[in-house]
Amino acid sequence: MRATVIHAPHDIRVEEVADPAIQQPTDVVLRVLRACICGSDLWPYRGESTIGTGQRIGHEFLGVIEEAGSEVAGFARGDLVVAPFVWSDGICDFCHEGLPTSCPQGGFWGQAGSDGGQGEAVRVPFADGTLVKLPADAASDDRLLTALLALSDVLGTGHHAAVGAGVRPGSTVAVVGDGAVGLCGVLAARRLGAERIIALGRHQVRTDIARTFGATDVVAARGEEAVEAVRELTRGQGAHAVIEAVGTEQSMVTALRIARDGGAIGYVGAPHGSGSGVDLRHMFNRNIALRGGIAPVRTYLSELLPDVLDGTIDPSPVFDLTVGLDDVPQGYKAMDERTALKVLIKP
Amino acid sequence: MRATVIHAPHDIRVEEVADPAIQQPTDVVLRVLRACICGSDLWPYRGESTIGTGQRIGHEFLGVIEEAGSEVAGFARGDLVVAPFVWSDGICDFCHEGLPTSCPQGGFWGQAGSDGGQGEAVRVPFADGTLVKLPADAASDDRLLTALLALSDVLGTGHHAAVGAGVRPGSTVAVVGDGAVGLCGVLAARRLGAERIIALGRHQVRTDIARTFGATDVVAARGEEAVEAVRELTRGQGAHAVIEAVGTEQSMVTALRIARDGGAIGYVGAPHGSGSGVDLRHMFNRNIALRGGIAPVRTYLSELLPDVLDGTIDPSPVFDLTVGLDDVPQGYKAMDERTALKVLIKP
Repeated sequence: MRATVIHAPHDIRVEEVADPAIQQPTDVVLRVLRACICGSDLWPYRGESTIGTGQRIGHEFLGVIEEAGSEVAGFARGDLVVAPFVWSDGICDFCHEGLPTSCPQGGFWGQAGSDGGQGEAVRVPFADGTLVKLPADAASDDRLLTALLALSDVLGTGHHAAVGAGVRPGSTVAVVGDGAVGLCGVLAARRLGAERIIALGRHQVRTDIARTFGATDVVAARGEEAVEAVRELTRGQGAHAVIEAVGTEQSMVTALRIARDGGAIGYVGAPHGSGSGVDLRHMFNRNIALRGGIAPVRTYLSELLPDVLDGTIDPSPVFDLTVGLDDVPQGYKAMDERTALKVLIKP
Repeated sequence: MRATVIHAPHDIRVEEVADPAIQQPTDVVLRVLRACICGSDLWPYRGESTIGTGQRIGHEFLGVIEEAGSEVAGFARGDLVVAPFVWSDGICDFCHEGLPTSCPQGGFWGQAGSDGGQGEAVRVPFADGTLVKLPADAASDDRLLTALLALSDVLGTGHHAAVGAGVRPGSTVAVVGDGAVGLCGVLAARRLGAERIIALGRHQVRTDIARTFGATDVVAARGEEAVEAVRELTRGQGAHAVIEAVGTEQSMVTALRIARDGGAIGYVGAPHGSGSGVDLRHMFNRNIALRGGIAPVRTYLSELLPDVLDGTIDPSPVFDLTVGLDDVPQGYKAMDERTALKVLIKP
């Protein structure tokens, strides 16, 4: 079969690889119907994180079960399923508590020895603990299938940020980051009842989506200027709930400075770069909480899936470019150059 | 009157100062019955934080109203009251929300231009927003009066840490810091229903108090050894709720390392020193929250006061040395040399 392989920074290729096969009785093999490229896939692409040469890549996908191992109880050939970006055994303390991202047997698609999502098929370990079934008729609804793909990462991650930031009915929320996760954070904040949602972003195509998703205000500025603008919009006090969906030192500094005393920052931008931007003294003096991390999206699926299925929320607009498998390298280029927000792959 | 004045590191004196007088109609003048020395008073004493020469000091006290300004509604001459370590106007957004430590008109006892608590009397600004009344008959109960004094800071601060750490019935809690605040954190955690409380500390007199306060386990180690010991006590997982009551880089590192994935650190040790000890990548990967800051102790008074009055909790054992006003400098010396845990002052 064909799959995406990263050989070195900016050297990403779609090539022939071995067909996936059941290795453990808890595995399934899944034929990929939809996959996509994540902002975090750009880190190895840009050389900002190390990867092994010849490693598979992609951690967001949904598809149809092609073969199920002998101990798989919940799925059978032909089932339509979505995969969270982390697999998990479903039986450990952390899985039971709703934190499958801390499952000791868990792992990331594309890590050494595992398949990536940007290919024709994937071997899924611990299928019962990992996958979530989708209604079969969704497979024939192109728009819905795209929306459901967002459940594999960005929608659940945006929701995690909103939960971490303590968004509740009536909240004033500020969102740092106009990528797909930040936009899904807007969607999640609106869904949780936020009254006011201030989206920070300077790309109008993105902030237009933010408005569609529920942003009531847009601040098209960065740094000090953005901080001033948010303070002006909030009677000088800042936002009680701040979603940090970037992961740079600068974005965390901004998030802290626009947070209201007693508020919280829900952070889901994986920290990268040298500094953290966390000023503990500032947080201490103002009782600002920091809560977030790698999103347990599988846990959120039971809550979010019904709302995507019935159209209450529709994250599909975050996908603004569609490519076939052979054009995945062009997809990376488009996201790297920010000509695309998020690239959908139809293998 | 006589009051404690700090002139330079290690130069603390009790000297004659001007009698306090009503300056604003919302002021009261309070005669101090009990005051004490805080671990944070040692920072200027040790030269670890800057102070103005000749500045008053002390932020924990209770006493009797001697004179009330014309606009003071809630108090009259003769009332027994306790003062939180921050004054607040009681009318702003933050005061209404229970975060008086962020009151724009608030301030700290001993800051330039204000009285400190370690003296015979104090001018209290915004008395209605600041003070809390105590039953008059408590004045004749020496043990109770000492316990009530803990409401001015350490008990509310320990409670804030426990709340920040998310302590709930059945929680496993670890407490970093065996000072008065850490010990009050133990007391607060037990009060909130923690099932297991692991106190870290190497001074047996302190860990004995921790056991009295509800600690089920004591780890008499620091650094890596302490981390290993806590992990061993928690099936390798760490504590879901960690109270950080020190404020050094080392203590925060320890707190993070003994926190369980998905858990939270309630931090009330005011950050001082160069680094923060916050490893954001570690927190991100394990979904560990950081929540705390300067404790809004006045807000907690309504919840904690009844339990102190009826003896449900008794923080008075944290005071292990009592001095008169003239011996306050010896009290600082004893705390600096760790021969005393917390010094009670009877002016």
